Amino acid sequence: MAGAGRARTMPTDSTEHIYRHYEEELAELKSRLLTMGGLAEERVRAAIAAIVDRRADLAQEVACGDEPINQHHKDVDNRCFRLLALRQPMAVDLRSILAAVKINTDLERVGDLAVNIAEAGQRYLLHPPVKELVDIPQMALIAQAMLRDALDAYVRRDVELAQHVLDKDDELDRLKERVFRDLLAHMLVSPATVEPALDLLLISRHLERIGDHATNVAEDVIFMVSARDVRHASPENR
Amino acid sequence: MAGAGRARTMPTDSTEHIYRHYEEELAELKSRLLTMGGLAEERVRAAIAAIVDRRADLAQEVACGDEPINQHHKDVDNRCFRLLALRQPMAVDLRSILAAVKINTDLERVGDLAVNIAEAGQRYLLHPPVKELVDIPQMALIAQAMLRDALDAYVRRDVELAQHVLDKDDELDRLKERVFRDLLAHMLVSPATVEPALDLLLISRHLERIGDHATNVAEDVIFMVSARDVRHASPENR
Repeated sequence: MAGAGRARTMPTDSTEHIYRHYEEELAELKSRLLTMGGLAEERVRAAIAAIVDRRADLAQEVACGDEPINQHHKDVDNRCFRLLALRQPMAVDLRSILAAVKINTDLERVGDLAVNIAEAGQRYLLHPPVKELVDIPQMALIAQAMLRDALDAYVRRDVELAQHVLDKDDELDRLKERVFRDLLAHMLVSPATVEPALDLLLISRHLERIGDHATNVAEDVIFMVSARDVRHASPENR
Repeated sequence: MAGAGRARTMPTDSTEHIYRHYEEELAELKSRLLTMGGLAEERVRAAIAAIVDRRADLAQEVACGDEPINQHHKDVDNRCFRLLALRQPMAVDLRSILAAVKINTDLERVGDLAVNIAEAGQRYLLHPPVKELVDIPQMALIAQAMLRDALDAYVRRDVELAQHVLDKDDELDRLKERVFRDLLAHMLVSPATVEPALDLLLISRHLERIGDHATNVAEDVIFMVSARDVRHASPENR
């Protein structure tokens, strides 16, 4: 599709020609980010399922399986580089590609966090269950939805949806606090639960960080669309 | 300094003129990243000092004080955007500015992690000391040195120094494991230490993540200089 674009190393004077290819390449970039986001979300889902269903085989598989996301990470980085080098975009398109560079980093980290969750899960499954897992799967569902919404907001340039992602982060934080208090109570009354409970705590922190990455993406979307910098603003000002 | 550059919205034909301003702006960008890195490093140092010296006032100060780093974060982002929009750099300069975009994000996160360390420190200081702190200050020193070296490597385009940062990360991981086993032993024999020990564990994880950010910076430097992608390579291949 972008064959002509690849071969050219300097922009031509044919603005319309550049523009058409350029739009196609931007669309392809967005599509790749969506694919990568879907992969990352699926890895998180699988890691949590492995823990809830006590499937060490699945935990093992997730712990070793971030290669496809890493390949996408390199590919998206290269595409962004090429778009910047060959197309020399201005204004909103430049912001859109810079957002892609950052979102790509966030998605790669989410892939890493899925691996971390699976690794903690592998250790957790060596012990009897500490408790029935309710809040952690709930945290995972929220984090996954935040990630999905943030990427949809990027592709659709939807500031309202991005704002919705920012609001959701508080819910995740509240659940994380509840998980902490709950597990602390278990550890205080039963030393045998300390080690597995620590891994559950770690897993809840990893899920919180996935929410943070979704928040980063949402903030990049708001900046991209409105050129308004909501990062480092107090919650009432964003 | 960049006044002429600011006023111009399209590149002129005077290559030499563009080049001179451009070099100055790139140098200023690097200088800002160094300042920001110095600030972030100092915040980490202060957060750890607050915990070791049991100074709740200092912990409180660090927990509230990431505004200067956040201001730098916005400023550097704007500078990168302007350089890309007005200068339309190619090849190694484009890689250098894209690296700055990513390094900026990493440094801002280190600032956040210093805040997280200080917050965990504030909770930790509400309890009697769990143990004498040796490994955690050691982890902090390594993480700070990694960050400093990674930024020096960026400014000096020093691949060897960047490689040194990557090697240091293993040392940090080993210390983190030792802190974990050590604190777990305390928690198992004395439930009274569970709560403060959890905060120490959290602090060691935050320090590990600062090392991860330094590693990201080092990888970006290697990519920038050699256009070789060491990310996602096995340790022996990088």
